Amino acid sequence: MQSDANGLIGAIEAGGTKFICALARHDGTIVARTRIATRHPSETWADVVAFFRTASAEHGAIDSFGVASFGPIDIDPTSPAYGTITTTPKPGWSGARYQDALDEFAVPIVVDTDVNGAAIGEWLTGAGQGVKTMAYTTIGTGVGTGIVRDGRPMMGFSHYEAGHIRPHRDPAADPFPGVCPYHGDCVEGLASGPAILKRWGKTLDQLAQAPADLLLVAGYIADLAADLVLLHMPDRLIFGGGVMKTPGLVEALRKATEERLGGYVRHPRLDPGLETYLVTPHLGDDAGITGAIELGRHALVQR
Amino acid sequence: MQSDANGLIGAIEAGGTKFICALARHDGTIVARTRIATRHPSETWADVVAFFRTASAEHGAIDSFGVASFGPIDIDPTSPAYGTITTTPKPGWSGARYQDALDEFAVPIVVDTDVNGAAIGEWLTGAGQGVKTMAYTTIGTGVGTGIVRDGRPMMGFSHYEAGHIRPHRDPAADPFPGVCPYHGDCVEGLASGPAILKRWGKTLDQLAQAPADLLLVAGYIADLAADLVLLHMPDRLIFGGGVMKTPGLVEALRKATEERLGGYVRHPRLDPGLETYLVTPHLGDDAGITGAIELGRHALVQR
Repeated sequence: MQSDANGLIGAIEAGGTKFICALARHDGTIVARTRIATRHPSETWADVVAFFRTASAEHGAIDSFGVASFGPIDIDPTSPAYGTITTTPKPGWSGARYQDALDEFAVPIVVDTDVNGAAIGEWLTGAGQGVKTMAYTTIGTGVGTGIVRDGRPMMGFSHYEAGHIRPHRDPAADPFPGVCPYHGDCVEGLASGPAILKRWGKTLDQLAQAPADLLLVAGYIADLAADLVLLHMPDRLIFGGGVMKTPGLVEALRKATEERLGGYVRHPRLDPGLETYLVTPHLGDDAGITGAIELGRHALVQR
Repeated sequence: MQSDANGLIGAIEAGGTKFICALARHDGTIVARTRIATRHPSETWADVVAFFRTASAEHGAIDSFGVASFGPIDIDPTSPAYGTITTTPKPGWSGARYQDALDEFAVPIVVDTDVNGAAIGEWLTGAGQGVKTMAYTTIGTGVGTGIVRDGRPMMGFSHYEAGHIRPHRDPAADPFPGVCPYHGDCVEGLASGPAILKRWGKTLDQLAQAPADLLLVAGYIADLAADLVLLHMPDRLIFGGGVMKTPGLVEALRKATEERLGGYVRHPRLDPGLETYLVTPHLGDDAGITGAIELGRHALVQR
């Protein structure tokens, strides 16, 4: 993606514990970067704005901002509340709006979710390079999926909420009711980090040593993977996040996903064993800020 | 959608038992229409071509064709097999290609699935008018969903296969294993017309008189509806097809879908009770041919 501007892009990866801020050239090269602890928005944003003010004075004018943020957040550019965090238990953040925080720079701003930002990053320079449609799922504190088509995040009236689909659970075989306050046994309620901790009180390394438990978790995530295939037919599935670092989990997930699909979806993309179809991320912690820089470029490119 | 041509559009709604063929003006007005029984492709297509030849001689030149076909079918315009029916038990149809059948007309052809055709029809002049993203699901002999965004069918490497997601089934409460040859208890295996007939040996009117059975079916379809919301966030859900004509089913489906979502997705689109969000089709049997005409227009409009 090209844009004609010669200045810089401000990028923010906004998470519940930290904000990563970067100033980058249009080719993605980062010229300044910082990490700011997430506190009340007034404090957090004072630090964010100070960083960009100082970095811009040193490196050059900012043409646009890209923000990949925790949510839930309004990401509909046609909505009056675009860029506003909607409902969160984090003190002060409900109703906070990125455009207000960054208004002194008076440049275009694109705001999307953290998982869409990471998905764009992996599509651009990571495990999703070269494919048309790609689904990036994070299995961590929460579970979420960002789906990118031709580098743009897909959405309907809002961002997707894939973590809340309900997998196949046989209560006789698995009586654990899940931890999601809304649904109990949705994927997030059964396979997220907090769900694993609550159920077994164990770490992921310990989970890796209990094959039956590992398979149970893999099976729930596989239901999500199969639903993503059936409802989006992506060219590649990427599964990342803390839980996916469990040794053996991605292998178990590939096997369970193939079993769930039952040979129904046949396409060269789905190689036997899914080793090239269902993969882990390449960028690690850099996916989010890479995606945020790309979102900043989107602000400058007409579509 | 406008196109500059002054001729006519050939439209085909191709089903397993009948082909509906129509010749239409660019504004959608049908000037000739016929119904042809689906037999071996050589016989079927001889009749189809004869109809368009005769109708064109009477009404004017054909600018393009739009086809909404049974499948599975290759609908990827970049694929060498675009427009080819892939694997079907129907004698002679595996490998059949619409472009070959219609090549004497030497005009552009757009081919899509029957369910995408019906979805486009409902979006254009039916229950989906005026919304940006719309999911049309048919619950009949099979179960399928077409999702339209800005009037264009959405897809990944292939068309979606929503009927094969697996709903929440508690084997202790419902031991019926489903009828899908690939998955057993996917939505198509549990809630399609053949599944209902196999399970209970009863008609839909009889199903309507057994509230517990009706709720069971509604619950399985609701899992699909909830997955469509979570993975596509459409502005409207339309549920049609023979099974949905069961008295009381759409009301039960609305209630079950709202329960499945558990209040997690909040948006003005989702009215309490889902009466304006989850609706039945408006066009009835005309949805498919209406969509096929629109597909024919797509063949003439650059995107």
